[in-house]
Amino acid sequence: MAVFYGIGVGVGDSKAVTMKGVEALGKIDILYVPTAKKEGKSVAHNIVKDYLKSNLEIKERHFPMNYNQDELNEAWDSIANDIENDVREGKNVGFVTIGDPMVYSTYIYLLKLLKNKINIETIPGITSFLDIASSENFPLVEGENPLIVVPATIGTEKLKKYIKEEVSLVIMKVYKNFHEVIDIIKEEKLEKCSIVVSNSSKEDKKVYTDFENIDEKDISYFTTILINKGWEN
Amino acid sequence: MAVFYGIGVGVGDSKAVTMKGVEALGKIDILYVPTAKKEGKSVAHNIVKDYLKSNLEIKERHFPMNYNQDELNEAWDSIANDIENDVREGKNVGFVTIGDPMVYSTYIYLLKLLKNKINIETIPGITSFLDIASSENFPLVEGENPLIVVPATIGTEKLKKYIKEEVSLVIMKVYKNFHEVIDIIKEEKLEKCSIVVSNSSKEDKKVYTDFENIDEKDISYFTTILINKGWEN
Repeated sequence: MAVFYGIGVGVGDSKAVTMKGVEALGKIDILYVPTAKKEGKSVAHNIVKDYLKSNLEIKERHFPMNYNQDELNEAWDSIANDIENDVREGKNVGFVTIGDPMVYSTYIYLLKLLKNKINIETIPGITSFLDIASSENFPLVEGENPLIVVPATIGTEKLKKYIKEEVSLVIMKVYKNFHEVIDIIKEEKLEKCSIVVSNSSKEDKKVYTDFENIDEKDISYFTTILINKGWEN
Repeated sequence: MAVFYGIGVGVGDSKAVTMKGVEALGKIDILYVPTAKKEGKSVAHNIVKDYLKSNLEIKERHFPMNYNQDELNEAWDSIANDIENDVREGKNVGFVTIGDPMVYSTYIYLLKLLKNKINIETIPGITSFLDIASSENFPLVEGENPLIVVPATIGTEKLKKYIKEEVSLVIMKVYKNFHEVIDIIKEEKLEKCSIVVSNSSKEDKKVYTDFENIDEKDISYFTTILINKGWEN
């Protein structure tokens, strides 16, 4: 029976894909590729391009990045419908997603629409925080401490509380309120056990451990801060 | 220059190793293998055995599972010393670790002892919670919610607080206080958005979504509970 594969591909390095992911990419007849802009390039597609069969059918789908919920729902309903039809016709279908499919991924919307309708196999991927921690040799969490992964957009008070109270933190999407987050880290005197990484696994990756000299133009949507109070750079 | 590779190998399925991990396993001259019992089998070694060169030198090292800190320190100092010597002699050395090297891993101790002494390349792996989430098609976290990864051993009050207040949780090492954790989940009426998985990716894996019929003998040291208040089984 045909299968819909949701494949996590990591954040940039094609070698961060698992063997299982590569195997699934070799099995599929059709790959759905999400693009943020109309006719734009897909980061996820680019990561896996060397693993794809030459006769693979690619179906590019535009996902609006604006926040009009109706438009978003329509786009998701439409892609889910197309995937369902392809699988029912006996095609193995793939969908590639940056990082891991179950962690802040748009793939979760597809899963909601398709579960219990067709065979779905989800293949995990290396998240941005796992990628950064290993590439910078920065341990995330040890012993009985919790690991808190939190989007910077959660609000200043909540963010401050987590940073004050927890030992190990991953702060994602540090972009809009970059200064605010940096100020909290400085207030708490956590510079020495923090690291700022933007565009992990990409050519223009930047790593900062010195918080005094961060060049703001390096701070992108894909900026992550790791804090581990039990570790010093 | 020779390199020490710390390689995350996932939790059981050899295909969960990344391409980068497989590549590193092919480069190494010596593999250090941690075993929990004297002359016991190493889970991590077993996962990667198909990726190893036939002439690879295996150095098994016993890691005491008791909690005598002196013995532990001695074992770590000794293995770190051996690895350092091998790398200085020009050998590429590998160390395999279950899950991801930077998340609750013994590899972190080695990193502390060896950083700034030799070249270290850490290669991320699929953690147990990423493995479980994908294999059960159970989304971990969406939107602006934090993801809280917490060992069950943290204490009842703290655990209760996280379960009450947070939307997305991974509870690790649910073993000693299994009943306590289950009781909190029932009190909070979270059974429908929780999943219990023991021995993920192994032959004797058990998955429970029905909390009334959990067979206690299935609950092992490698039992994990995922909770996502935004999801229903």
